[in-house]
Amino acid sequence: MRHILVVGIGTGNPEHLTVQAINALNRADVLFVPTKGRKKVDLAEVRRDIIARYVTNPASRTVEFALPVRQVEGRSYVGGVDEWHAAIAETYVRLFLEELPEDGTAGLLVWGDPMLYDSTLRILERVRATGKVAFDTEVIPGITSIQALCASHRIPLNLVGKPVEITTGRRLHESFPHRSETAVVMLDGEQAFTKVTDPDAMIYWGAYLGSPDEVILSGRAVECAGEIARRRAEEREKHGWIMDIYLMQKGADFDDE
Amino acid sequence: MRHILVVGIGTGNPEHLTVQAINALNRADVLFVPTKGRKKVDLAEVRRDIIARYVTNPASRTVEFALPVRQVEGRSYVGGVDEWHAAIAETYVRLFLEELPEDGTAGLLVWGDPMLYDSTLRILERVRATGKVAFDTEVIPGITSIQALCASHRIPLNLVGKPVEITTGRRLHESFPHRSETAVVMLDGEQAFTKVTDPDAMIYWGAYLGSPDEVILSGRAVECAGEIARRRAEEREKHGWIMDIYLMQKGADFDDE
Repeated sequence: MRHILVVGIGTGNPEHLTVQAINALNRADVLFVPTKGRKKVDLAEVRRDIIARYVTNPASRTVEFALPVRQVEGRSYVGGVDEWHAAIAETYVRLFLEELPEDGTAGLLVWGDPMLYDSTLRILERVRATGKVAFDTEVIPGITSIQALCASHRIPLNLVGKPVEITTGRRLHESFPHRSETAVVMLDGEQAFTKVTDPDAMIYWGAYLGSPDEVILSGRAVECAGEIARRRAEEREKHGWIMDIYLMQKGADFDDE
Repeated sequence: MRHILVVGIGTGNPEHLTVQAINALNRADVLFVPTKGRKKVDLAEVRRDIIARYVTNPASRTVEFALPVRQVEGRSYVGGVDEWHAAIAETYVRLFLEELPEDGTAGLLVWGDPMLYDSTLRILERVRATGKVAFDTEVIPGITSIQALCASHRIPLNLVGKPVEITTGRRLHESFPHRSETAVVMLDGEQAFTKVTDPDAMIYWGAYLGSPDEVILSGRAVECAGEIARRRAEEREKHGWIMDIYLMQKGADFDDE
């Protein structure tokens, strides 16, 4: 039986690695590193840096592979993602069979934590469902961008005893601020924060969290949404890609009692 | 100016420590370790173990202190918590003034991550507001029980493109399953999962996550709520305290498109 270690590596700061993750990387015979596109090239560099810094197992090999690119043209969102996941699953089948002995251990280095807005675990289920290669899975948590965001702003995520919603830009209007007093937006192609008109809503924004390029901004959303949108566009232009998240909050600890 | 490092230590597995956390602990002149009560005694043991394992700075001192106990009798929930936080803030004022030189660095070892259902950051704001001691704060993220739960069950937290709510047992009925398809319950004195009647709701439960005593159970909530409640009572009896969380989920990836 092959063993697949799905290892969270945090958000770009090599010091985000846990001791558990370092030990897992050193247990692997093979480490798979995806490479593709401008953004992926930067991220591949972070993975190579982590491996160079922490992997001391002399028997460890690194195998780089081209991650399939998601096609969007002429496809529904779901259709495009489904096809993309299927293509990655086929790539994994090939890698596991060609690069990993039958009792071998492989490590997949996952940005952030494998549980949060990442599809590695569900793609591995697809690989298993093909019946072409048998394996077991172990998951090692890693620091997420939500944690890096709160740490850099030095704020708690939740108000005392109150819920938090983790959502997408497309769905933010469904819950904030009328239903959730704390909302974290993970994926936002449309800059939904610029549409929030509640004068009491605060925003805590961050891009490239954990990396040397980290930028954070915060304030009343109606006052600083414009500045954040401008800064976001500038940074995106400068790097060729952007990875950002934000937290919106309204209300105070204990104000519902 | 004094420096206070608020360091997330994960959920009981010493390997949850990040390299950033280990380096922070080694930068501190003084590490403050709370001791009190049965549960706190077990947790103090984990903190001592982490310090013994990772702190190599010969100038580092550990100072143990009795954490004030929350009084509940004759108090509202908010009143009780407010009074308790004020007492802890007074303790911190005393510790910072008596145990830490004016340019010294102290480390507070926080269970999980300081951002999530922890009051260290808001208590430090109270300390600052007293005007009795000036300091700056740095926050180091740590693995939360949500991450440990998902890793042990080997599941993603969110369904594709869908929101996640983090809430309390008392508030679970407000959102799950009619509004949230994924709900994580952090604090549940009333075992709210036993009241969920939706036949499609799944539960993923875990106690003492990350520690050698870890227990996990999962299944359809209506079928396994009884077993989880029984197991929870047994474990609580055995250890004298329990720390558990669970995730409830309904629906599937992509089923809203």
